[in-house]
Amino acid sequence: MDTIVKSETKDVKISSDGPFVVIGEKINPTGRKKLAAALKEGNFEYVKQIALRQVAAGADILDINVGVPGVDEVDLLPKVAKLVSETVDSPLCLDSANRDALAAALAVLPGRPLVNSVNGEEASLEAVLPVIKEFDVPVIGLVMHDDGIPNDADTRVAVAGKIIERAAKLGIPEENIVIDPLVLTVGADSSAGAVTLETVRRVKEEFGVNINLGASNVSFGLPDRHTINQAFLALAMGAGATCAITDPIKLTTLIRASDLLLGKDNFGSRYIGYWRDHKPKED
Amino acid sequence: MDTIVKSETKDVKISSDGPFVVIGEKINPTGRKKLAAALKEGNFEYVKQIALRQVAAGADILDINVGVPGVDEVDLLPKVAKLVSETVDSPLCLDSANRDALAAALAVLPGRPLVNSVNGEEASLEAVLPVIKEFDVPVIGLVMHDDGIPNDADTRVAVAGKIIERAAKLGIPEENIVIDPLVLTVGADSSAGAVTLETVRRVKEEFGVNINLGASNVSFGLPDRHTINQAFLALAMGAGATCAITDPIKLTTLIRASDLLLGKDNFGSRYIGYWRDHKPKED
Repeated sequence: MDTIVKSETKDVKISSDGPFVVIGEKINPTGRKKLAAALKEGNFEYVKQIALRQVAAGADILDINVGVPGVDEVDLLPKVAKLVSETVDSPLCLDSANRDALAAALAVLPGRPLVNSVNGEEASLEAVLPVIKEFDVPVIGLVMHDDGIPNDADTRVAVAGKIIERAAKLGIPEENIVIDPLVLTVGADSSAGAVTLETVRRVKEEFGVNINLGASNVSFGLPDRHTINQAFLALAMGAGATCAITDPIKLTTLIRASDLLLGKDNFGSRYIGYWRDHKPKED
Repeated sequence: MDTIVKSETKDVKISSDGPFVVIGEKINPTGRKKLAAALKEGNFEYVKQIALRQVAAGADILDINVGVPGVDEVDLLPKVAKLVSETVDSPLCLDSANRDALAAALAVLPGRPLVNSVNGEEASLEAVLPVIKEFDVPVIGLVMHDDGIPNDADTRVAVAGKIIERAAKLGIPEENIVIDPLVLTVGADSSAGAVTLETVRRVKEEFGVNINLGASNVSFGLPDRHTINQAFLALAMGAGATCAITDPIKLTTLIRASDLLLGKDNFGSRYIGYWRDHKPKED
């Protein structure tokens, strides 16, 4: 199943047949003081730099989150998204729970952005899905519902089904829904990784839709987070995930290596090409 | 299914229920000139050092290969294996295609070593399986046969079945067969990883036996081999492999992280404990 995301000049296909799609996570002020300050002050040069660095590192799509307490997302999200779309060729992923901010950004952006996100809560389904329908764009569906994030794969799969079904009722096709099985840190619950990986496998089997993961939370609070994040991405790719919102600077090599090992890189040309363009300067 | 490997004082269980078992690959002179010279000269201090370093790094079992051209394996394998067994507590994996060398080493070693290996060639089945039966030890079965290493998962699975069946005819139980689906470098054939991972999944499904991989060959000839080896180990663990002959110094952290993400490390205690004991000195 192909989910198509577009900028004005570039199409990105998310699909289990093709290579894994990297959604750069770094334009998000959560835990990033410098970016939070830049967004508040309207210092957009810094935002541009982060956009360019992520694309240079291998990001296929850039996530855009402007959620700083006190800012007006309805004003700021379209502004920042437009600016980034004029800075890089890559399609964008509009990251907000605010339906008015999403609609305002979708109204001014060229192409076909991905929306991040809807979830299984009634309020979210009712607010976000009509916007998705109106603009005919794809959306990430998080498997949480009115009772929070389910602890078990069964319930997460059921929430995925609910989101797909509710979208279908509005005439939104399955290929426009990218399910995010959600991962919590294994530092708090050592079964968290296994539950998420099982959800990935079952959502793939039962619905065949594309699957996204936010692939940096899993290691929160643990030492050597990078190794855990690498292992998790490889495991998620093996289980059937087709894209991730992650750090392209640290993790694209691992993603290219996993694509190669999964038979999705003929002659290893993407892996070798990536290495040539990004090998450490000291080589 | 549990495969039990023992030294005089220590049992290691290879099982899909438990954590992944690390078989240290470094006592093998292939491509290691210093070790080859040491083995030829009978400089066993160097062998002891390598044994101790691997166990300190997290190896559960140590592979012992003395295959230097010109040495008498029947004499040297038992000698080196005995020496290592007196140096470390860990069980050993006797790595030779020479049935007399294997028998000589099994005759002098305490415990219950793993044998590496038998394969689907008639000559190998006829030479090695009777030794396995006589000493009641587990053996690694490589999925190659008289026509070489099959290119496709179907034939590899069939060779695995043949090894298990021939062993059964001698009264060797399935839990004493650890299938190695073999991996060639993705540098020469970019489908090599996918074929091996499919073989892992199907051998697990169809036979339920333990599965080993030699997890360093896959990256041969490619840049940044470490990242490819990490990705491959995580993918193989996700597909159902239960042990690997690999570099414990470079790869145990990734293996512990993958166990944690696969729900095989309650409270992350093995991962965190490993990190505490092995964190970089500059921390």
